[in-house]
Amino acid sequence: MSDKILVFGHQKPDTDAIGSSYGFSYLSNHRPVGALNTEVVALGEPNEETQFVLDYFGVKMPRIVTSAKEEGVDTVILTDHNEFQQSISDIEDVTIFGVVDHHRVANFNTAAPLFMTVEPVGSASSIVYRKFLEAGVEIPKEIAGLLLSGLISDTLLLKSPTTHPTDFKVAEDLAKIAGVNLEEYGMAMLKAGTNLDSKSADELIDIDAKTFELNGSKVRIAQVNTVDINDVLGRLTDVKEAIKSYMTAGGFDDFVFMITDIVNSNSEIVEIGSHADKVEAAFHFSLEDDHAFLAGAVSRKKQVVPQLTEEFSK
Amino acid sequence: MSDKILVFGHQKPDTDAIGSSYGFSYLSNHRPVGALNTEVVALGEPNEETQFVLDYFGVKMPRIVTSAKEEGVDTVILTDHNEFQQSISDIEDVTIFGVVDHHRVANFNTAAPLFMTVEPVGSASSIVYRKFLEAGVEIPKEIAGLLLSGLISDTLLLKSPTTHPTDFKVAEDLAKIAGVNLEEYGMAMLKAGTNLDSKSADELIDIDAKTFELNGSKVRIAQVNTVDINDVLGRLTDVKEAIKSYMTAGGFDDFVFMITDIVNSNSEIVEIGSHADKVEAAFHFSLEDDHAFLAGAVSRKKQVVPQLTEEFSK
Repeated sequence: MSDKILVFGHQKPDTDAIGSSYGFSYLSNHRPVGALNTEVVALGEPNEETQFVLDYFGVKMPRIVTSAKEEGVDTVILTDHNEFQQSISDIEDVTIFGVVDHHRVANFNTAAPLFMTVEPVGSASSIVYRKFLEAGVEIPKEIAGLLLSGLISDTLLLKSPTTHPTDFKVAEDLAKIAGVNLEEYGMAMLKAGTNLDSKSADELIDIDAKTFELNGSKVRIAQVNTVDINDVLGRLTDVKEAIKSYMTAGGFDDFVFMITDIVNSNSEIVEIGSHADKVEAAFHFSLEDDHAFLAGAVSRKKQVVPQLTEEFSK
Repeated sequence: MSDKILVFGHQKPDTDAIGSSYGFSYLSNHRPVGALNTEVVALGEPNEETQFVLDYFGVKMPRIVTSAKEEGVDTVILTDHNEFQQSISDIEDVTIFGVVDHHRVANFNTAAPLFMTVEPVGSASSIVYRKFLEAGVEIPKEIAGLLLSGLISDTLLLKSPTTHPTDFKVAEDLAKIAGVNLEEYGMAMLKAGTNLDSKSADELIDIDAKTFELNGSKVRIAQVNTVDINDVLGRLTDVKEAIKSYMTAGGFDDFVFMITDIVNSNSEIVEIGSHADKVEAAFHFSLEDDHAFLAGAVSRKKQVVPQLTEEFSK
């Protein structure tokens, strides 16, 4: 085994997973005291948004690995995740040297003390930025760009309620170092991730979908980002067919499909299933042709799941 | 429920548990940005060493609580521990706002993102000290004294192999602020925790004892700190009787009793049981009258348990 440490974000990496791991690996190797020998790697292919970011800042996608041991490495650092099921396949067989994350802590444990920083902020990249400042290490322009992109991606350009009050200054600082206009660059980046035309209806409803058990009902809640809700609504007949097939195959009671307008920070909610009344009550709207507009909603985690959880429990 | 947050160290608090929680509560209430309304409490009575520290710096022992909900509080901050079985009785029913710790992470999970800082350093108090610096909050003299005492206690005055390279500077800085001579104060404090004369032999072998399963053998490993190993060896006949009764009652195969000289950083090892040969092999010494000298050993965690684990597995 070499003394090399692998640094990576979660499986199915998004821009914050790639940005935070890339930045933290660089910082770890360049600390004036206690520098490490790390390599950033990824646990999957970049999505279209992340590819845009890498191309924009001229950064090569980290190589993709599936096992630390196969790389001859027995020590790892995790960014943007901690739960073992989201991590590298042999996470339970290696030493976890450090964690930088902004999620809840669950299904995680170590045999020995480690470096672990978790903060309830908008992105793991925000924490990595602060660690650069604490260590007094200068941030290269392209790394500032990657960290900024991670924050923009996770907070939909600081519009999501998951944005922390400190994130606005972080974004401003990073945009300056990266040499980009925050609003212009951010919108271009988010739009790059919304190229839905090439996706089939089956793919659309599975880009970012999670299953929830709500008071005994099995509910699928999916989300897509777009710059024009009508582009997706225009395909509603196909989408509804895809949803119905998916529900039958998976035994779902309801399927909630959230079409989020990243320009204006609103969503259209499509509901198929046996609890349309509960969905209407949760969001105080009336469904027409199985869908309705939900002003100001961009976060599934904060603006949809809790409201449905409460209504289904009544 | 009030908006108050309780801050506390682990059950059976030691000096680092009290020092780190006291210091972190003060810091949390005095942050220039994001100040909280916290109260430091404790999960048990102070030991003699901790009582010496509190008296020395004129600090009142935090009040002792057993449940957060009974205090009308539903949010807590943990220092010097994270494992739920070492925490407050209703830890699974409250919100964990933050953690500051230097142990492995295990039996710990949260429902939401939190503030969590874990570092593999000599004491939780070392981390709290760094957080004062990061926040730019001035450290009152008595809090510097408590944090310094936590570090001295956990590292036996920076002699234990658990001491981190950064801890020496931390101790130097804190001693300056606290207005004490590190060596003189540290030795006086450690001695205050070694008043063994008042303890019965049964109490001696249970002051700090843990059970280990070593390759199918049930082994108890206990440790006492003293300024003169001969004071304890003078009571060896009584101690051996107490150990044998304890082993019979608990069905132990071996009892390893570590008498640690905190002045010279050595230990005498007493071994009673069926694997004396393995204990001798592990430490490369010969037991005489069931005991032998182990030069330089002060840490059960790093200098005794791993060596026995390896030898028993042969």
